[in-house]
Amino acid sequence: MKRKNSQVAQKVKVRFNSQDDPVLVPQGATILEAASLGDIPVEGPCGGRGTCGKCMVIAQGKLSPLSPAEKELLSAEERKSGHRLACQAKISGDVIVELLHREELKSQILNQAAGSNAVLDADVRKNYLVLPQPALEDQRADLQRIRDQLPQGDTLKVGLEVLRKIPALLRESEFEITAVVAGTELTDVEAGNTARDSYGIGFDIGTTTVVGYLMDLNTGEQVGVSAALNPQSVYGADVISRLSFVIEHQDGTQKLQEKVIGTLNELIEETCSQTGVDPQQIYQVTVVGNTCMHHLFLGIDPRSIAPSPFVPVATAPLSLTAQELGLNVHPRAPVHTLPNVAGYVGADIVGGVLATGLYQDGELKLFIDIGTNGEIVLGSRERLLACATAAGPAFEGARISCGMRAASGAIDQVYFDSDVHCTTIEGARPRGLCGSGLLDAVAEMLKVGVIEPSGRILEPEATGSLATEQIKRRIVAGENGPRFILTQAEESAHGQPVCITQRDVRELQLAKGAIFTGIQLLEKELGIEDKDLAEVLLAGAFGNYLRRESALRTGLLPPLPSEKVRSVGNAAGEGAKIALISARLREKAAEIAQRIEYVELSGRGDFMQAFADNMFFPEKKED
Amino acid sequence: MKRKNSQVAQKVKVRFNSQDDPVLVPQGATILEAASLGDIPVEGPCGGRGTCGKCMVIAQGKLSPLSPAEKELLSAEERKSGHRLACQAKISGDVIVELLHREELKSQILNQAAGSNAVLDADVRKNYLVLPQPALEDQRADLQRIRDQLPQGDTLKVGLEVLRKIPALLRESEFEITAVVAGTELTDVEAGNTARDSYGIGFDIGTTTVVGYLMDLNTGEQVGVSAALNPQSVYGADVISRLSFVIEHQDGTQKLQEKVIGTLNELIEETCSQTGVDPQQIYQVTVVGNTCMHHLFLGIDPRSIAPSPFVPVATAPLSLTAQELGLNVHPRAPVHTLPNVAGYVGADIVGGVLATGLYQDGELKLFIDIGTNGEIVLGSRERLLACATAAGPAFEGARISCGMRAASGAIDQVYFDSDVHCTTIEGARPRGLCGSGLLDAVAEMLKVGVIEPSGRILEPEATGSLATEQIKRRIVAGENGPRFILTQAEESAHGQPVCITQRDVRELQLAKGAIFTGIQLLEKELGIEDKDLAEVLLAGAFGNYLRRESALRTGLLPPLPSEKVRSVGNAAGEGAKIALISARLREKAAEIAQRIEYVELSGRGDFMQAFADNMFFPEKKED
Repeated sequence: MKRKNSQVAQKVKVRFNSQDDPVLVPQGATILEAASLGDIPVEGPCGGRGTCGKCMVIAQGKLSPLSPAEKELLSAEERKSGHRLACQAKISGDVIVELLHREELKSQILNQAAGSNAVLDADVRKNYLVLPQPALEDQRADLQRIRDQLPQGDTLKVGLEVLRKIPALLRESEFEITAVVAGTELTDVEAGNTARDSYGIGFDIGTTTVVGYLMDLNTGEQVGVSAALNPQSVYGADVISRLSFVIEHQDGTQKLQEKVIGTLNELIEETCSQTGVDPQQIYQVTVVGNTCMHHLFLGIDPRSIAPSPFVPVATAPLSLTAQELGLNVHPRAPVHTLPNVAGYVGADIVGGVLATGLYQDGELKLFIDIGTNGEIVLGSRERLLACATAAGPAFEGARISCGMRAASGAIDQVYFDSDVHCTTIEGARPRGLCGSGLLDAVAEMLKVGVIEPSGRILEPEATGSLATEQIKRRIVAGENGPRFILTQAEESAHGQPVCITQRDVRELQLAKGAIFTGIQLLEKELGIEDKDLAEVLLAGAFGNYLRRESALRTGLLPPLPSEKVRSVGNAAGEGAKIALISARLREKAAEIAQRIEYVELSGRGDFMQAFADNMFFPEKKED
Repeated sequence: MKRKNSQVAQKVKVRFNSQDDPVLVPQGATILEAASLGDIPVEGPCGGRGTCGKCMVIAQGKLSPLSPAEKELLSAEERKSGHRLACQAKISGDVIVELLHREELKSQILNQAAGSNAVLDADVRKNYLVLPQPALEDQRADLQRIRDQLPQGDTLKVGLEVLRKIPALLRESEFEITAVVAGTELTDVEAGNTARDSYGIGFDIGTTTVVGYLMDLNTGEQVGVSAALNPQSVYGADVISRLSFVIEHQDGTQKLQEKVIGTLNELIEETCSQTGVDPQQIYQVTVVGNTCMHHLFLGIDPRSIAPSPFVPVATAPLSLTAQELGLNVHPRAPVHTLPNVAGYVGADIVGGVLATGLYQDGELKLFIDIGTNGEIVLGSRERLLACATAAGPAFEGARISCGMRAASGAIDQVYFDSDVHCTTIEGARPRGLCGSGLLDAVAEMLKVGVIEPSGRILEPEATGSLATEQIKRRIVAGENGPRFILTQAEESAHGQPVCITQRDVRELQLAKGAIFTGIQLLEKELGIEDKDLAEVLLAGAFGNYLRRESALRTGLLPPLPSEKVRSVGNAAGEGAKIALISARLREKAAEIAQRIEYVELSGRGDFMQAFADNMFFPEKKED
C-alpha cells in the first residue's frame, strides 16, 4: 500500500451491492480489506492467499490487473463478466462491488468469527400454534393448552402481563397464535402466524463509540447496523474521567446511564427504520462493553473499580429485561450482558475471545485490544491469561501535541521514502494525528534514524544514513527540544504544521512499553516465549487501522514475522452478535470469563522493572 | 351439646392466654373445640379421646367437673393448680385458659395439619455474612463475594435493584451484611445482622372472607392473624355474580383486583401492627382461593370460567412478585399462588388436600368444602378424584326466606326436644337463619316427622309421633303452604318470626342433593362404596359449624357412623401457611393438583338421574 505522488493520499469509495453508504478505503487496499472495513460479509477462508476462490465477487471500476491467482481460479467467462477475487483485486479508484450469495454469506461470516462450530441456535423461538379448542372433554387452562404444544412444556415460565393478555387473545384469534419463547420464558403471545418476524439486537458499548447490530434470529443474518458516539463523552473522554464524574456527582451513575440508554434507543430506531423491522419484534438484546461501560449501562455505581484493588460490582453474566432498562424493544425481551473478568478486563474482551475462538484454539495466540487500556489475553484451549495495562490515551490521540481522534482529517498512515507521505481519514486536509498515524510516524522516524532507540529525536546532523535531506529538513528546534514536521502549515487544514514532539515520542514509549510489558508478563506466567505464539490478533478500531510493521518496529508487539499479526476487526461486536444467535455460545462466554485467569499487574515489582526496560525502542534492524 | 332452659342458648367467652379478643363458643363446647374455633393451637394427637394428656391447659371459670380421663391423667398437684385436659373440660360460662408451651405448639399444629412429615423448610433464608474485604489478591466482584458465601453459589439470581444497592451497602456496612435469599433469588441485602427478622404472610381469599396469616419463617410459627370481608362482595355475593360483573364491565377485572389487593394490604398492616413486624421484613407471600378469586387476585380476566366448558386461564402454580401485584410487603417478595385444578376446583381445595394430608393417606377419605359450590375430593395416596357441584347458595343463607350469613343474630344451631331450642351467633336476639341452622332445623323436623322424606312439610295433624304439641303448634299455614316457626315474632330482633317455608326445604333439598350426588359419582368413578370411606373431612366455616348428625340425617353426607365425620377447620388457610413454611410441601401442592382427576358433572346423564333421586331425604331411622 505505497502511495506515490501526493503527499496526502486520497481515500476512494467502494460501494457494495447497491448500498447507499460507500466504504472509504485507502488506495491499494484489496476488495476483501474494504469489505472488512465496512463490515461487509465476504468469505475468505484461505486467509486472503488467493487459493480457495471463495471470495469471488463481481467488481467494476479502477482495479489492479488480474493476479496470477485470479488467472488460475477464474474461468474465461467469469473474467469477461467482471468476476474478481476480493482478496486479490486492489482498488485504485472508486469501485462498485456486487456480492455473490449475499444472504448465505451473512450468516457464514458470523459462524466463521466464532470458529468452526457456531450454528444458528438462538434461544428466542417463535412458535406458530393452532391450539385445540376447549370442550367439556378438554377443559385445560389456556396456559396449559399453550404449554402442552411447546417443547418447554410445564417448565415454560410466564409473567403476569402475558398471562393477562392470554384469554382475550386466544379467543379473538380463534386459538391460532404465535408463542414467543426466549429460553424458558413465554415472552409474548401474538395473534395468528408472526413466526417470520424475529429479531435481536447486539450492542457494543465502547467508551467512545456505540454500535448496534440488528440480527434476524430466524436466519442468523445481520440485517442492519448503526453506530453513534457514546454521549457520555461529554462527561469525560475515557473510563477514568467517567469514574471521576460518578464519584463527584451524586446522580452521576444515573445521568451516565440515561445518556447511553438514549443512544441505544436511537440505534434501535435507526436500524429498525433502515430495515422496516418493528422494534416490538426485537425479542432479545445482548450487550458487550468494558466493565465500566457495563456497569453504567445497568445503572450500577462503578466507582469501586477506580481505586486499588479495582473491584467491580458484578462480573457474572446477567439477564434483565428491556423494560427495566428502558430499552425500546419488546418490553419483556431479555437483555443479556456478557460477563466481565475484572475491573479492567470487561465483557468486550470476553466477546472478542468468544468471536475469535481463542478459547478453543489448539495453538497459542495473543489477543490485544488497544485503547486507553490495552487489554491482553494470551492462551489457547488449555489456559487463558489476561491482564490490563494502563497504556494511557496516546493511541487515542490524547496527550499528543497534534493528537486527535480517528476522525476526518486525522493523519492515519505515514510512509517515508525520500520524503514523508501521509494519508488522512476521508482524504481531508490534515488537522492532526490519530493513533495509527503516530505509530507509523515514529516507526518511520526510527527506520530512517531520526529517532534513536532511547526515543530521543536527533538533531538533523546526527540522524542515520537513511534520512534524506528532505527528511532532515523536517527536524526543527522547538522550545522543548527538536520536533519533526509531518505536514507543513500551508498544507494543513488550520494553517499550523502537524508535527511530533519529543514529548509525543515519550508518550508513545510509555504506551507501547506498558502493552509490551503486559505481553511479556503473561508469557512469563504461562512459561512461554515469543516464538511459541502462533498468531497475534489485534482487535478494535485501532487494531484495524494500525500497520503491523509499525507495531513491530516500535516494539509495541514482540518481534514476530509480520504475517503472524492479524487484525480481527470489531471482535467485541462479533461477540455480541454471536451471543444473540447462539444460546450455547452465549453460555460459553460465561465459561470463558471464568476460565480466564486475571493477572493483576499493579504493585508487581517485576512489572515495573520490565516496564522501565521496555520504554526503549528495539534496536533498528536494517531492512 | 344439649341446651336446657333458654330457647336461645347464649354463647360464652373463652379468653386464651391474655388475648384481647375472646373466642365465642356455645355452652357445652370443650376447651379444645373452643381453641379450634378460635384458631388457637392446642395439640390433640389422640383426637379428643382423653387418652394422651397432651392437650393439658390451665383453666379458670365455669367448667364441667373433672372427667374420669382427667382424674386418671392429672396429678393431684396439677388438679390443685387448675390443670385440665382441653378435650375433656366442657365450658358452661366465661372461661380463661392459659396454654402450656405455647410457642412450641404453634409450629406443631401446622405440622400436624400437614400430616406427619411437615418440617420447617421455608425457602426464604436470611444469611448473616461477614464477607472478606477486597484486596489486590482478592479482586472478586461484590456479587461474587456474596455468592461464594451462599449455598446457592453461582446459581443465585439477582435483579437490577439489588445489584444497584450492593456496592454502597457493602462498603457502608464494612462488608457485614444479611443476604435475604428466596429460593435461588437474592431478594435483598441488608446492613448488619438482621437474620432474626424473617416473615411470610399466607392469604386465604374466600368469596366472602379473606384471612391473612403472618408467619415467622425462622420458627414456622403463626405470629398474627387477621380477617376481613372480601370487598368484592359489593359487586356480587358469589362467584357467578362476580363473573357477571366482569363480563358486563370493561374494567371489571381491574376493579375487583384493586378491591382485593386493598384488603390484603389492610390485613398486612393489621397483622404487622399487632405484632410489631416491619412489612418490609415479609419476604414471601402465599395465596389460596377458588379459581375465580385466584384469577381476580392476579388481575386475570376470569370470564371464560363462567360458561361451559368452564376453562380457566391458568391452573399451574405461579410465582410473581409483591411489587407487580401491589402488595405492601418487601417489593421483591415472591408471591406464590397455589395451583388450581379446574374452573370450579381451585387452589383452596388443593390447599385443603395438602393440609389434611389426604394425598398421602393410606385410607380412602372424602374431603368436602361446602359453600355456593360444593367441592368434593375423594381418594387416598393411590388416586384423587374431584368434582364441583353447583350446590346453590342455600348453605350461605341466600334464597332462604329467613336466610342470612353466619353473622351476629343468625340461628346457627337448632335442637328439638319437647320444644325447639336455638342458639345464635354472639348470643344476639335471632335475626334469621344461617346454613348450619337451616340444616339443623330440617334435620330435627325430619326426626320428629314434621317433614316427610319427600320434603313435604306436613300439616300438624299428619306429623309423626315424636312431634309434641308444642312443636305441632309451630306449623302454621302460609300463602304457599305450611311453614314452621323457629322463633316467634316477639323473641326476634326485628319483631318478625324466624321460620322455614316449604320453598326453603326445597332449596335445601337441591343443595344437599347436588353434593350427595357428587359424592356418589366420585365413589362410582373410583369403584368404591360408602362403607369403604375411612373418614369424611368437612372444610371451611360451614363445615366447622354444622352438626354432623344433621348432615347425616338430611342425607347431605352418605350414611356413615357420625364419628367418621370430622371438621378440619380452615384447611385452605392451613394450606397457605404450610406452603409458606415448607418449600417442599409447596411443590407437593403442584403435584397434588396434577394428580387430582377432575370429574366434570355437567352434561352427564347419570348425574342428572342420580340428582333427581337424591333430592329426597333418607327414610327416617328411629333413634
